[in-house]
Amino acid sequence: MTIIRPMRRGEGGALLAMVRSLAEFHGTLDRMSASAELYESAVFASHPIVGVLMAEVEGELAGCAVWHRSFTTYRACEIMYLEDLSVLPKFRRRGISRELMKDVARLAVSMGYPRIYWLMMDWNKEARGLYEGIGAEIEPGSSYCGIQGPALEALAA
Amino acid sequence: MTIIRPMRRGEGGALLAMVRSLAEFHGTLDRMSASAELYESAVFASHPIVGVLMAEVEGELAGCAVWHRSFTTYRACEIMYLEDLSVLPKFRRRGISRELMKDVARLAVSMGYPRIYWLMMDWNKEARGLYEGIGAEIEPGSSYCGIQGPALEALAA
Repeated sequence: MTIIRPMRRGEGGALLAMVRSLAEFHGTLDRMSASAELYESAVFASHPIVGVLMAEVEGELAGCAVWHRSFTTYRACEIMYLEDLSVLPKFRRRGISRELMKDVARLAVSMGYPRIYWLMMDWNKEARGLYEGIGAEIEPGSSYCGIQGPALEALAA
Repeated sequence: MTIIRPMRRGEGGALLAMVRSLAEFHGTLDRMSASAELYESAVFASHPIVGVLMAEVEGELAGCAVWHRSFTTYRACEIMYLEDLSVLPKFRRRGISRELMKDVARLAVSMGYPRIYWLMMDWNKEARGLYEGIGAEIEPGSSYCGIQGPALEALAA
């Protein structure tokens, strides 16, 4: 049986393992510099913008959904951004991702957020199946852009 | 001369006109339900997650950058998401977008954010030129996914 519930103090290390597992799947493990302590500071801050749901299978942590508060200028209100959805390899193909999505949706509705949004890599066929199955709208044709490090410093100069 | 400075109270209507102009350019004007009042409530809230920079040209409001606080699990820290960059048609082709990007970068650096990120529609060649010019990384191949309305209610049930 799968139980979905908010992350607890002391689970930063488990969260790190799950995020690393997802980064490995995306081939972006080299971008990771997070730590268990930093996750706990962010999630248990006094006015947090980030939250984590954990999936527990027979007492073992199996996966997580990490979301953060976001804002849309279309509606001028807060909406929910789903940053990560991760299920550890040994727990895959049991419907845990879908259970997590359901609880993310319940949380969004309970917080009054009219919309949840996220990004999907176009090569991720399994994710597409899940998202189509829950009735999500999928709009291809966008690029993810970012600026950091020396380029950010130069622009700010 | 262009002055970039934070949005002031009473400028919600000007912001609405700029966001509508951008939505028109993207063919998504039908998604708009924002109001000047809702923008002001969000920007001038006690713990806002959203901020707006205005570009003023000879006393006239010409464009804006809307950003919000975001969180990356790669680093376990807050980063800045650029939601909208809009310059009104009569002020285009004067380098105002780049001026806005520079001040967004200054703000991010001053707030200790190591990264700014945003989404670009792949058809938007002009935007690509600007972003390449400032040294941004551009990663194509992602889809923007969302769930709302009856689909969100059904998933949460």
